[in-house]
Amino acid sequence: MDTVFEALVRENDKKIVLLVMDGLGGLSLTPDGKTELETAMTPNLDRLLARSECGLHLPLGIGITPGSAPGHLGLFGYDPFKYPIGRGVVAATGIGFPLKAGDVAVRLNFATADEKGNIIDRRAGRIPTEKCAELSKLLDGMKIEDIEVFVRPVKDYRACVIFRGPGLSDEVADTDTQKTEVPPLDPEPLSTKATKTARIAKAFVSEALQRLKDKKPANAILLRGFAELPHIPSLKERFKLKPVALAVYPDYKGVSRLVGMDVIEDLPELSAQLKALSQVWGQYNFFFIHHKYTDSKGEDGDFKAKVAEIEKVDSAIPAILDLKPDVLLVTGDHSTPALLKAHSCHPIPFLIAAQAVRPSGLSKFSERECLRGAWNMIRSQELIRLAMAYADKVQKFGA
Amino acid sequence: MDTVFEALVRENDKKIVLLVMDGLGGLSLTPDGKTELETAMTPNLDRLLARSECGLHLPLGIGITPGSAPGHLGLFGYDPFKYPIGRGVVAATGIGFPLKAGDVAVRLNFATADEKGNIIDRRAGRIPTEKCAELSKLLDGMKIEDIEVFVRPVKDYRACVIFRGPGLSDEVADTDTQKTEVPPLDPEPLSTKATKTARIAKAFVSEALQRLKDKKPANAILLRGFAELPHIPSLKERFKLKPVALAVYPDYKGVSRLVGMDVIEDLPELSAQLKALSQVWGQYNFFFIHHKYTDSKGEDGDFKAKVAEIEKVDSAIPAILDLKPDVLLVTGDHSTPALLKAHSCHPIPFLIAAQAVRPSGLSKFSERECLRGAWNMIRSQELIRLAMAYADKVQKFGA
Repeated sequence: MDTVFEALVRENDKKIVLLVMDGLGGLSLTPDGKTELETAMTPNLDRLLARSECGLHLPLGIGITPGSAPGHLGLFGYDPFKYPIGRGVVAATGIGFPLKAGDVAVRLNFATADEKGNIIDRRAGRIPTEKCAELSKLLDGMKIEDIEVFVRPVKDYRACVIFRGPGLSDEVADTDTQKTEVPPLDPEPLSTKATKTARIAKAFVSEALQRLKDKKPANAILLRGFAELPHIPSLKERFKLKPVALAVYPDYKGVSRLVGMDVIEDLPELSAQLKALSQVWGQYNFFFIHHKYTDSKGEDGDFKAKVAEIEKVDSAIPAILDLKPDVLLVTGDHSTPALLKAHSCHPIPFLIAAQAVRPSGLSKFSERECLRGAWNMIRSQELIRLAMAYADKVQKFGA
Repeated sequence: MDTVFEALVRENDKKIVLLVMDGLGGLSLTPDGKTELETAMTPNLDRLLARSECGLHLPLGIGITPGSAPGHLGLFGYDPFKYPIGRGVVAATGIGFPLKAGDVAVRLNFATADEKGNIIDRRAGRIPTEKCAELSKLLDGMKIEDIEVFVRPVKDYRACVIFRGPGLSDEVADTDTQKTEVPPLDPEPLSTKATKTARIAKAFVSEALQRLKDKKPANAILLRGFAELPHIPSLKERFKLKPVALAVYPDYKGVSRLVGMDVIEDLPELSAQLKALSQVWGQYNFFFIHHKYTDSKGEDGDFKAKVAEIEKVDSAIPAILDLKPDVLLVTGDHSTPALLKAHSCHPIPFLIAAQAVRPSGLSKFSERECLRGAWNMIRSQELIRLAMAYADKVQKFGA
């Protein structure tokens, strides 16, 4: 099916904006209550409904909760099951590290250990990014056997390790138990082809602990998400798009780079993203705008704050419409209900505003209203087809 | 997809109740009338709607009517096309007969033949179970060539034959024509590898007729559903569940055993099922409650009686809710409209009550209302995913 679609794709200048409120989908706190989106005042999105088709989409089918990477891969038109992306790769590409085939990347957390080696703080007191950069530098540049080791800061207590050299594999278990009061695990090989990688990782940990021993609260490290770079065909190859990402957070820049998007750097928040959007408007025809804080507030369990984030994004809609996109797709990558303080498997509402639509006739952009839309339920990865079709980028099949 | 889901499953103590009204889905008797479920007064189910997601599910896709075994396999999360289960196996496992690999089981009906050997009553005047047990004993224990033959009573005129020994196959045609005024057929092999089995079965029939010749009205037998035991991975293996079945009828116990459920015996009717539910509540986390009579009344074409059975089950809801299940899924395995006096291919309404749902806002639990629910149409086998996700038994996919 993907192949058929891709063969029909044609290039044109029509512009598609994909506006993602991370973790948009929600739940009401009480059975008779409203979700975050139902509660939010969204006059601009609601006005768009008059020229939008609506629905709900499912990233990974029924009952499966997506992480951020598969959630976004789906929105970009990829089957998330076909392209599993490990945490380490998301982290490395997120900071723009030029990964090569065969590299193994791992997320590294600085942590605090007591004198027995038990972890007492998995985030090293949330050290600032500058401190993380300094410590990463201290660990960077080891050579273990024939393997080069790069260590790069990400954000706060989070860094990234990249192992480069022959014979590596990502089939190595996490050292992070995700618990405190216990020591980290050794990096164990999960298959025989990972024996070398596990040995190298163990030596790395050992040397790192030596170098960090006087650096409390950052006197320990936790490794999580050993991952190799998968081969993902780009949006350009697949859909003849010229795509650009406007995201604040490194991980979303990372996923965007994996599908071949250009990435605009140094966007501290939404108004900067909007400004950048208008600046690069002439150079691209697919614009991914990512808003992180709807998800963060959901993860915090802060219903009101998530509502406020939705309202903030709503207020950005006119600035986007001023640019006259041919297609505007507004949705989330997954649900993060404040009720659950976590990602969830619930389907995500979307609207797609364009000229050639049959307006769904809804009065409010919400989970419940979108149930009455035309597209209920569709797989996330099919949304891009709608966007491209409504931007006249898909030729007819057959005579 | 199944593999991905299974890899994400985690064990916890949260409890799922699957309440099945067999043949629940219905049709109205007149175009402007109501279905059985629409007619039934179901105050308890209707009250549950305030905290339920609703929808309709399809066991075998559009236009295919399921038998009981595939209907239930779907509800248990199995692809019914992948695990065809013959009638003989359902019968044998239903009575708890310990089938071994290579056994071939067949349903046997005692019947009445006239002096020419033509069948005049396919159910031998519905002889009671005690008579069936006595006659089964009379036929039990033959040794034909190197094959052992077991005959066991099931219920009323229905029994079960198990052939055990080398070189058997289930590719043998039924002897039951499902007609009267004609003789039974010979058991014909449907492939060359079933030649031996057909020969053994023919010898068994011949000897059985000898032994039954003075036993009118049970002076003949009909064989139906030659079947081997398929390998079905258990609910424990696949979903880390501790499941138990609370069913009155042998066939449903049989299907439950095939997926590795424990089965509570000697439950004559619904109140005994509810009592047993509360007794075993602490020992399991998946409870399958089966109510047969909605289907029986549908098969009888007795619309009113089916309505009454639905109302009876509705009145059992409070007793289930008193136990505080984390997830309560109420549905049927297929439709059995009284109008048709038979199973049908129509989708089946369901409700799933849990904390983490978006209530569908329906006012009555019915086929028509459920069309407006969130899940319309989904495959039966995906329902268990929803139940497991809402019981927090599924981990996130991807970083």
